Amino acid sequence: MGSIEPPTPLTTLLTSLVPSRPDLTTSILPSLLTALSTIASSLRTAQNVSPTSTTNTFGDAQLNVDILAESALRAALSQCPSAHTASSEEDPIERPIHDDAANHTTSNSETYTIAFDPLDGSSIIAPNWTVGTIIGIWDGPTALNAPPRENQVAAVLGVYGPRTTAIIAIRFHQSQEEGQVIELGLTDSGGWEIIRPLVHFLPSDSESETEPKYFAPANLRAASEDPRYMRLVTNYIEKRYTLRYSGGLVPDVVHALVKGQGVYLSPVTASSKAKLRRLYELCPLALVVECAGGRAVDPTDGRDVLDRPVGGCDERGGLVCGTPEEVEFAMGVLLGEK
Amino acid sequence: MGSIEPPTPLTTLLTSLVPSRPDLTTSILPSLLTALSTIASSLRTAQNVSPTSTTNTFGDAQLNVDILAESALRAALSQCPSAHTASSEEDPIERPIHDDAANHTTSNSETYTIAFDPLDGSSIIAPNWTVGTIIGIWDGPTALNAPPRENQVAAVLGVYGPRTTAIIAIRFHQSQEEGQVIELGLTDSGGWEIIRPLVHFLPSDSESETEPKYFAPANLRAASEDPRYMRLVTNYIEKRYTLRYSGGLVPDVVHALVKGQGVYLSPVTASSKAKLRRLYELCPLALVVECAGGRAVDPTDGRDVLDRPVGGCDERGGLVCGTPEEVEFAMGVLLGEK
Repeated sequence: MGSIEPPTPLTTLLTSLVPSRPDLTTSILPSLLTALSTIASSLRTAQNVSPTSTTNTFGDAQLNVDILAESALRAALSQCPSAHTASSEEDPIERPIHDDAANHTTSNSETYTIAFDPLDGSSIIAPNWTVGTIIGIWDGPTALNAPPRENQVAAVLGVYGPRTTAIIAIRFHQSQEEGQVIELGLTDSGGWEIIRPLVHFLPSDSESETEPKYFAPANLRAASEDPRYMRLVTNYIEKRYTLRYSGGLVPDVVHALVKGQGVYLSPVTASSKAKLRRLYELCPLALVVECAGGRAVDPTDGRDVLDRPVGGCDERGGLVCGTPEEVEFAMGVLLGEK
Repeated sequence: MGSIEPPTPLTTLLTSLVPSRPDLTTSILPSLLTALSTIASSLRTAQNVSPTSTTNTFGDAQLNVDILAESALRAALSQCPSAHTASSEEDPIERPIHDDAANHTTSNSETYTIAFDPLDGSSIIAPNWTVGTIIGIWDGPTALNAPPRENQVAAVLGVYGPRTTAIIAIRFHQSQEEGQVIELGLTDSGGWEIIRPLVHFLPSDSESETEPKYFAPANLRAASEDPRYMRLVTNYIEKRYTLRYSGGLVPDVVHALVKGQGVYLSPVTASSKAKLRRLYELCPLALVVECAGGRAVDPTDGRDVLDRPVGGCDERGGLVCGTPEEVEFAMGVLLGEK
């Protein structure tokens, strides 16, 4: 069975959450975590990513780190018999992982498609800000045209900062919104330890007036042409919310998860097009946010990101996510209802 | 002479810049860089900093990392005979570094006071965002009541992100604004290599309309009571500037340095008091920004940060810094002249 790992506290926890998916919990997730630690190592010594001040000439060095991340993930998946299909933001086409794909499909009761953004946050790599990896794991030989809430069974985020952390979100059962989010940390010896077995947004009644509230307004240029977005931003300022916006999707969403509250906004307007990829960015992040008790919606109509199948690998959208209360308030303003 | 290091490309470069300061370039700066790599190691395995969502209960774990950083810097300085006095944001009192301080003062032609913020960015350590160390190096046995532009001869920033980088700013001569900023990276083998020997803001005529321009509005809550700050922020949005604001002083200023342009704003209003410490934060950052060809001013009157002596270890202020053009524009709006 290739790279099945010996039981660790993590695999024991994962297996207890979804006992019906042994390949996911003992092969695919451990292999992906190994890839994240490889990516962290690559980044730590990739000093040549920083020598330039323009994004244009910055291309080559940047590309090297992206390719290293892409290779680490594909190498990890090639060790997993039940990993059938892969596609990536760097190569947005679904391809079989194994040459003898037909055999793998029939010989395993579990069959997965893995879609990933190997290194998100290219614009903030040069200044040495935290960046991340985003991975969605789907049931079956394709992620396309399938109901995301049912078929996307797990998501993994890699967070490369002063230390290396990871977030795993896993659904307990198909067709349900329940699930669990676990925070992991990479240890000195290269293993992953559980930092928090249960990451969850704080209940709204625990919010006090003295605790800071956070907002992360992405694509803020859009506020110049969308009076509702501008009104929403000035509203947060007037209510004395604390601004935190790194421009990296993973650190920005993880900030809200770790603080237990917050809202991330990436609206779409006529001239500020939707930029976030539904397959590689929005669906995995939405799974994490929902499993932590939050909401992730399409800002154009307020529908849950996971309500709508992904029609193609390059399909894009906007995002509003965070605690249910914050998302409801933001969407009320953005849709002109408040 | 204690911990004088064998010549490296870095010490060779530093010595060529300030040949009259051998202790600074071969003892103090290398020792401080060693401390930064120790802090980076401590942070990398400090997984227990993230388990809580509130800043109050977060205190203890946080304190451990702060103390480790403080200890690493003090241990490094104890190896440097010409390092006479130290004070830190964690212990804001100037104290002699060596027990036999009188002897050290008289036996060395160089005598330095080192003031540092060992770990800046406590609120963003839990979500694993980039944080930093800030160090100012002053001529003589005290940094207080001395002219900063003349007496603060060097500054060091440690940047702990996906990789570990450092910024060194050094004045060529006292009483001049000239100096040089060098970017370093920590290598796999634990040494520091020169990433960019000359970090400098881009000349204003190189800015094109197609390149993104950046702004980092700290203390944004102040805009709720200061119409000028609100007007400045909406002006950036309307001019389609790109927002990047991590809330960490080091990563936010380093972002502008690496991109070659940008503006950082931390105004002061009646109810949003000045928060940044002049000795541990503002003066070292101002030295870096000036040596890179930028400006760093007090937002209350537009005077250069380095024009005004530091009267006490806990003195605080606001900050506007970045390219000269951006600082001039921002101050025009904040002082009501535009």
